Amino acid sequence: MPVEDLILVAAELRNFLINTILENGGHFAANLGVIELTVALLSEIDPETSPVIWDVGHQSYPYKALTGRGDEIKNIRNKHGISGFPKISESPLDWFGTGHSSTALSAALGFAEALKNNQNRHPVFAIIGDGALTGGMAYEAMNNMIDLNYPLVVILNDNQMGIDPNTGALNKHLVHLQKDKQPQQVREFFEWFGFIYQGPFDGHDIGVLKKTLKEATSQNKPHLIHIQTVKGKGYEPAEKEQTRWHSAAKYIKVDHPSPKHQETKTNDQRPKTYDQGLKTKDQRLKTKDQRPMAKWQNVFGETLLELAYSNQELRGVTPAMPSSCGMMPTLEKYPDRFFDVGISEQHAVTFAAGIAAGGKKVIVNIYSTFLQRAYDQIIHDVVLQNLPVVFCIDRAGLVGEDGPTHHGSFDLSFLLPLPNITILAPYQSSELRSMMHWALEQNHPVFIRYPRGETPIQAQNKLLSNPTEPKIISQSSNPKILISTTGIATQLAINALEKRPELFNQVDVIHFPAVKHATEVPYLPQKNYQHCITIEDGSIIGGFGQYFKYSWEKWNNNPTNQSNPKFHHLGIQDHFPSHGSIAELQEDEGFDVDSILTKLNQLLINS
Amino acid sequence: MPVEDLILVAAELRNFLINTILENGGHFAANLGVIELTVALLSEIDPETSPVIWDVGHQSYPYKALTGRGDEIKNIRNKHGISGFPKISESPLDWFGTGHSSTALSAALGFAEALKNNQNRHPVFAIIGDGALTGGMAYEAMNNMIDLNYPLVVILNDNQMGIDPNTGALNKHLVHLQKDKQPQQVREFFEWFGFIYQGPFDGHDIGVLKKTLKEATSQNKPHLIHIQTVKGKGYEPAEKEQTRWHSAAKYIKVDHPSPKHQETKTNDQRPKTYDQGLKTKDQRLKTKDQRPMAKWQNVFGETLLELAYSNQELRGVTPAMPSSCGMMPTLEKYPDRFFDVGISEQHAVTFAAGIAAGGKKVIVNIYSTFLQRAYDQIIHDVVLQNLPVVFCIDRAGLVGEDGPTHHGSFDLSFLLPLPNITILAPYQSSELRSMMHWALEQNHPVFIRYPRGETPIQAQNKLLSNPTEPKIISQSSNPKILISTTGIATQLAINALEKRPELFNQVDVIHFPAVKHATEVPYLPQKNYQHCITIEDGSIIGGFGQYFKYSWEKWNNNPTNQSNPKFHHLGIQDHFPSHGSIAELQEDEGFDVDSILTKLNQLLINS
Repeated sequence: MPVEDLILVAAELRNFLINTILENGGHFAANLGVIELTVALLSEIDPETSPVIWDVGHQSYPYKALTGRGDEIKNIRNKHGISGFPKISESPLDWFGTGHSSTALSAALGFAEALKNNQNRHPVFAIIGDGALTGGMAYEAMNNMIDLNYPLVVILNDNQMGIDPNTGALNKHLVHLQKDKQPQQVREFFEWFGFIYQGPFDGHDIGVLKKTLKEATSQNKPHLIHIQTVKGKGYEPAEKEQTRWHSAAKYIKVDHPSPKHQETKTNDQRPKTYDQGLKTKDQRLKTKDQRPMAKWQNVFGETLLELAYSNQELRGVTPAMPSSCGMMPTLEKYPDRFFDVGISEQHAVTFAAGIAAGGKKVIVNIYSTFLQRAYDQIIHDVVLQNLPVVFCIDRAGLVGEDGPTHHGSFDLSFLLPLPNITILAPYQSSELRSMMHWALEQNHPVFIRYPRGETPIQAQNKLLSNPTEPKIISQSSNPKILISTTGIATQLAINALEKRPELFNQVDVIHFPAVKHATEVPYLPQKNYQHCITIEDGSIIGGFGQYFKYSWEKWNNNPTNQSNPKFHHLGIQDHFPSHGSIAELQEDEGFDVDSILTKLNQLLINS
Repeated sequence: MPVEDLILVAAELRNFLINTILENGGHFAANLGVIELTVALLSEIDPETSPVIWDVGHQSYPYKALTGRGDEIKNIRNKHGISGFPKISESPLDWFGTGHSSTALSAALGFAEALKNNQNRHPVFAIIGDGALTGGMAYEAMNNMIDLNYPLVVILNDNQMGIDPNTGALNKHLVHLQKDKQPQQVREFFEWFGFIYQGPFDGHDIGVLKKTLKEATSQNKPHLIHIQTVKGKGYEPAEKEQTRWHSAAKYIKVDHPSPKHQETKTNDQRPKTYDQGLKTKDQRLKTKDQRPMAKWQNVFGETLLELAYSNQELRGVTPAMPSSCGMMPTLEKYPDRFFDVGISEQHAVTFAAGIAAGGKKVIVNIYSTFLQRAYDQIIHDVVLQNLPVVFCIDRAGLVGEDGPTHHGSFDLSFLLPLPNITILAPYQSSELRSMMHWALEQNHPVFIRYPRGETPIQAQNKLLSNPTEPKIISQSSNPKILISTTGIATQLAINALEKRPELFNQVDVIHFPAVKHATEVPYLPQKNYQHCITIEDGSIIGGFGQYFKYSWEKWNNNPTNQSNPKFHHLGIQDHFPSHGSIAELQEDEGFDVDSILTKLNQLLINS
């Protein structure tokens, strides 16, 4: 197909994606940035024989659309739709699943190794953003490519942005390059690792891209093709506000600016009204629930600002999530004390450990799923040394549409075995605030986990004196069942009982904000519960429920206490939950309000 | 003190360390390489106000000796002696504990941040080897130093060696530099990150080191001082065989070559006879136990060689541990299929995932404690995608003298919540071999954990048809107690019963090689055990015992099964075990042979 036709394909694809994502939701700006790259790549190679690996993968929509999944984009990230990330079970052309940053180069090197003895040495492609290159894992992979004798092509998609603007040495050189167009510094860096460097090129010029790709695959050497692209390309609001347009909300239609590419054939399919970004979602939730709601992220952000103001020595660290985690206002106000260290969870945690060892208080905010990247640093640098780092673990539990790569299922299981620590999980906004205040007064590591989404704002907002103490939510005189919960599972249990108030007579509910080292509730083992249901928004294996049972047995060691309720653990089961809305996924796992009521009914009928 | 006197101090220190470590054991070659650096550094700075961070830290003996702990070196790594690594609880001059590689730069940056507003801006020092610079975490830290306005000095100790020779791009440039003495490529790399580069210098020249250090601390900028040193410097056998002399065995004295520095004052303290390296330890163990013994590492290594021979497509990956893990013979024989990727656990795992996704079988060998570094890659790249990577987890459980940074306490707890996987733990050499054969035939991820140390060689060595099945070790007609074990804990239980054979009448012992998804033993819940003791060489919280109990309750769901033994979990308790011999530590944790017998006696008396 001649380049002119490919340009038309790209224009059509852009219009299709703008319309479809604005209507149905999904990652937005990153996808608009790689349309020409995707069109050029697929016109030049055969994706059935050449592995293509998209780092992070939220920019894979154009690739999905052009590899047989165009009709599915409208359902992307919905429970019964395709995934928002490459997924090997979805299509053989999704060669390697991604979601977390900086993995593509290692995987590509693995493919090169597996294919090297084949008769046809099909080239292997990895597309990685400049943001993902701050992750040390990508450096580890590059350091291992020096003697590679295979056509492995790394395409550096340089758009100067992760979700937020990038940081660090690499970014500085790339920004400098944008200004003076002398690629010497950037070229040297990649040549140092043995790459043949080509670039920088305009990543929206299909002709140049095709020509460069053809050259790069003609040699048994690793190549780095450096392209410069614009996130949100072709949709003006997104080009201007790239962070806000990282993803688009769904289902809400209000006025929106017209796409640029009105001349393409799909123009008539464009819906008339949309709204923008995340604000929409807030509004939608408010109509569903009349109580004023706040995002957990904003509760964190506002409390952080309050703490930073009152403690001028407080430090804070985020690995590349200042906007999404709520740290941005504090970071902007106190840029000398609050740091976005880029995509570098390992560094973030040990950097914080160093700050704490140096005598300063420090809060680190990391999503649960990304905390997995820093597990060794948590153990080795923070917990073993008993340094008072405060971890705020955002997006703990089910996260919804981002799906299995992003669910925060495992944090309780992998943190509970660690000595010295406190793990907390609030179910209310005021509790999170109190916990952050409390945590900064401790002399040991404290982990506070809270979910994605919103929580009712509480009118009374004074600090709890000890936010780690168990809270009796509901207590009857002679109950048959104890519900023991932590985090937002407590709210689900409350909602269940509010839906069937007669159950209050037979059921006690206790909220345990401290998942590890919960304070003993002395009267509990003396009650003759027949059943105990534990509920948590996390993996059942190794999670709160099993640890609670273990604690119970210790409390029960007193010979006068002989209570032996039968335990039932609700939470995330022994599989990877799919993508879908959080409510849908809670139902799948069996700990939504109706599942809790079903469980209660079963047990009460049989008791 | 003038340089001439410092040279004498260094010579004396060298002789002291050679004699003391050869006599008492400990890390050897790395320490001899940094004697002049340590002397120069401590003559130039005040370690009470300037943080000094030793990356990995096995090279900190000279520093410990010169900061008030000279008398303790003879007891280093013994249970009641000082640690073999920097440890903040040991001395205020151990500013930051280390043990795992590549953490020092992040910690140093944290100190710089914590100290930046102090009136005196004391410089911060991080000493890191060229091997540790292959770890991506160090790159993440460097990438964050570009705008640093603080006297932070990184000393690159370039000795071209980790425990084994280094690999990758950085190493290639450093080797090249050794040959032609043109530091341009190396200089450019570090200048790229904003460092002021100085070097390369002879790292054994105290005068040059002093002068360079003085200059580097005079500016509020990050400096990189590149020194070239010789591992094992001053002790000829260690200079020649650096890998073998990574550490020295203890207590055994036979003929050994004379140290070079015989002219120093401490000459007369030198013992007359020593032996070399690890061979000694084998000999010692053989005299204790008349059965022929093999290292678990050698069982792995020999099985791997056998598998690599019979399957010419098999691949293997080790992150910088080819000698210690037993992969070296296979790597030397099949260098095109077996890879030492340097210190880069994250890359190692995803590289293997790519190989598996590309259709090839692959075995990864990583120590349990270092597997923590690749936790996210295990979840996100291997397990979520259900790729058939085989993990051989070496040094699982208590590792002895290396202490808390190196114990493999947590692998069972952090792996058990992961779906799709099989986790295996052998107690016999033939079982490990069978498991490796079996694992390569599976289509899902398999993890095989085994400890440091030795195991009796079994005469009969044919493959088990299904090495995942529970094995009844001992069964009596009407037992009161079930001992349920996995891994080497099974051997401890056997040893306990062999010591008190009368217990065989009252105790059943079953070995569960499959920690996760153990095959149900149908008759078990029908037996009316009063107690079940679980034993494991790993963390009790979230470990085998708790998972076994969880499985038991599921097996017990059949209404005809109403067995409810009281469970007792033996294993690593909720703290970080210290350093000492493995036997001492097993006793501390309460799962050595005598502790098992004590527990049995208690339960039998009370039943």
